[in-house]
Amino acid sequence: MRIKYSNPSLNNKEKSIQNNAINSRGMLFESELNTSNEYYRIHQKAIIYKKPTPIQIVKVDYPKRSMARIIEAYYQTPSTTDYNGIYRGKYIDYEAKETDNLSFSFKHIFPHQIEHLVNVDKMGGIAFVIIYYRKLQKIYIMDIKPFYKLYLDNLKDGTQKSIKANEIESLGGIIVNRGYTPLIDYLKAVDEYYFNEKK
Amino acid sequence: MRIKYSNPSLNNKEKSIQNNAINSRGMLFESELNTSNEYYRIHQKAIIYKKPTPIQIVKVDYPKRSMARIIEAYYQTPSTTDYNGIYRGKYIDYEAKETDNLSFSFKHIFPHQIEHLVNVDKMGGIAFVIIYYRKLQKIYIMDIKPFYKLYLDNLKDGTQKSIKANEIESLGGIIVNRGYTPLIDYLKAVDEYYFNEKK
Repeated sequence: MRIKYSNPSLNNKEKSIQNNAINSRGMLFESELNTSNEYYRIHQKAIIYKKPTPIQIVKVDYPKRSMARIIEAYYQTPSTTDYNGIYRGKYIDYEAKETDNLSFSFKHIFPHQIEHLVNVDKMGGIAFVIIYYRKLQKIYIMDIKPFYKLYLDNLKDGTQKSIKANEIESLGGIIVNRGYTPLIDYLKAVDEYYFNEKK
Repeated sequence: MRIKYSNPSLNNKEKSIQNNAINSRGMLFESELNTSNEYYRIHQKAIIYKKPTPIQIVKVDYPKRSMARIIEAYYQTPSTTDYNGIYRGKYIDYEAKETDNLSFSFKHIFPHQIEHLVNVDKMGGIAFVIIYYRKLQKIYIMDIKPFYKLYLDNLKDGTQKSIKANEIESLGGIIVNRGYTPLIDYLKAVDEYYFNEKK
């Protein structure tokens, strides 16, 4: 399906910036996550990749026999989440979000992505949302179960349209520390939440 | 990285055909796998998706504010394999190949894809190659360990440039039966090989 609206999980401008890995504000959250995942792979800690953005290809040109140039294509809605892979023998799956607001709005995540994470959790996988509150310079991972509960509350009565950082903390979300190797050591938060390992 | 050679895991012509889900020969192997995975998801047996083809986006046009049209892009080499997900609580990862020859040539799979599957296996995930021999109308799954062994033998002395169906069988590969629901019930072969469940 073609996107007739801006894709919450993919801002085109940001995407092109992210391709260059840096922007005026420095590296984007997604790029930092990708770099961190590369670090985890190199150190054989986890194999986690960002899925490519789904693109619907309409027209392809062949300037050289050996090379295909796509000349008409459109962004598609991702069927699932941004990231998945294997960690400590378990399937791990998450959606990465960043917000410039003090509260993360549910409208910035696709319902079917939440549904996907709920299904992964049901099957025994590790499923969460990782949210970067840029203004607060804070990153949290929140398991899909409490996230989904808030999401349903919102659908019911519309009272909970978004999630504040302190709400994530009060619901057992784990703060992720920034560092250098890796830049975002979110697997430490995963160890704490899913493997009951205190920092 | 741009592909200056034809991508073994993605034949552009086939890809565009596959987008329409059918071709003259009927559904492609990949489309049949996608349909089978959809069946598995609906019946909550497994959550396995094909990863989108990685595309390097160079130029985007905005005919409408609400819509982005990609006007220059290129196919990229996939970092990993075609398919991954969760099955019976385990991480599952595989590469799907079809061949019109009687023997599957190693040159039709990227070395880094084999390496990826080897790493997944090391981490305790389910990692294999599923190969469709069109001429024989036979589908097999072959665990990455024996596959990798043959691959290394080939690198050593170049004697084993490809794999025949009977070689897969003699090395413990499991034949996959075609059916209707799903079209390709390869998880039955996975049960047999990885969970020691006889058919």
